[in-house]
Amino acid sequence: MVLKLYDFLPSGNDYKVRLVLTQLEIPFERVNIDITKGESRTPEFLQKNPNGRVPVLEFEDGRCLPESNAIMFYLTEETELLPSDRFRRAQVLQWLFFEQYSHEPYIATSRYIVSILGNPPEYEAVLAEKKEKGYAALNVMEHHLSDRPFFVGDRYTIADISLYAYTHVAHEGDFDLSNFPSIQAWLQRVQSQPRHIPITQR
Amino acid sequence: MVLKLYDFLPSGNDYKVRLVLTQLEIPFERVNIDITKGESRTPEFLQKNPNGRVPVLEFEDGRCLPESNAIMFYLTEETELLPSDRFRRAQVLQWLFFEQYSHEPYIATSRYIVSILGNPPEYEAVLAEKKEKGYAALNVMEHHLSDRPFFVGDRYTIADISLYAYTHVAHEGDFDLSNFPSIQAWLQRVQSQPRHIPITQR
Repeated sequence: MVLKLYDFLPSGNDYKVRLVLTQLEIPFERVNIDITKGESRTPEFLQKNPNGRVPVLEFEDGRCLPESNAIMFYLTEETELLPSDRFRRAQVLQWLFFEQYSHEPYIATSRYIVSILGNPPEYEAVLAEKKEKGYAALNVMEHHLSDRPFFVGDRYTIADISLYAYTHVAHEGDFDLSNFPSIQAWLQRVQSQPRHIPITQR
Repeated sequence: MVLKLYDFLPSGNDYKVRLVLTQLEIPFERVNIDITKGESRTPEFLQKNPNGRVPVLEFEDGRCLPESNAIMFYLTEETELLPSDRFRRAQVLQWLFFEQYSHEPYIATSRYIVSILGNPPEYEAVLAEKKEKGYAALNVMEHHLSDRPFFVGDRYTIADISLYAYTHVAHEGDFDLSNFPSIQAWLQRVQSQPRHIPITQR
């Protein structure tokens, strides 16, 4: 089966899927979608995801699966990246939903405004609000990681991959991680996993 | 096992869990947490969920699980509310993440501002932006439901429960559903499921 990943290279959401596919050694083909040029809103792309967002994973038979965290869950069922214990699996989901609701809308979008859109001045007030809520999310992570090596069950799972994706580039959205020693140590642990790749690697 | 649900009665996120527990006929005890009075940010509550949000499901042994959609997934594994097929299960997750990222932040929070906070004038600009993005989410739902009875696999699942929770009270945030006939028919189908309860029922 040849998997096709519709993917914008700087996107952390897309990177999550690229990293999982690479760590599981699953071959895939990348199709670049430049979201800054509207390529995720064309009629053709909206057939694949009516919500107009990357990433989308396309199977050989044409079925399409959007939403980075749903794709990761699909790819890692019955692998070591997703616990087989029911409660631990729910805890992984807890952090995936935390990531999409309480983390990504502040930390990822700040990076998008600052580093991808080039920090246009009209976003100043928006960025200030995102900063406050982004630091709140980082505080929750720092607290949780203060006495554990990974987010769930003392093992590297997709909860770590999901939160790593935008946390390790948070400085590109002007977040300062120097007061978050547990997060910094955890970033190092994630980076030292076998077959780790950097965000811009295809 | 006695389950304890920390729950704010008007909250759609909390209602999701109450509805699942009721439909699966799982007994539980409700603990009311009034989020408008800061009761989800007390030191005691932050022990249960450091992110300071309801709902939280507490087990008899003291373990706690936050995040409505993660709780629903946990409760419905190996029930008819969650498909056993791996791809369909991933599609359910796709819609749960859609709900938390593209729907709830606009439709639920508009209702919170309009009907729970009493529509204070300083939120006017915020509400206008939420309206645009909320209608975008409703359009994605209307399109998807135009040729299917439920969100995934032609069956009632937690994807429907998740999206029903705030869609059926969208008018309380000043959304008008009259131009969404497929959504309206789907709301009726959800309401006609066995053991359905309204949002304010304990």
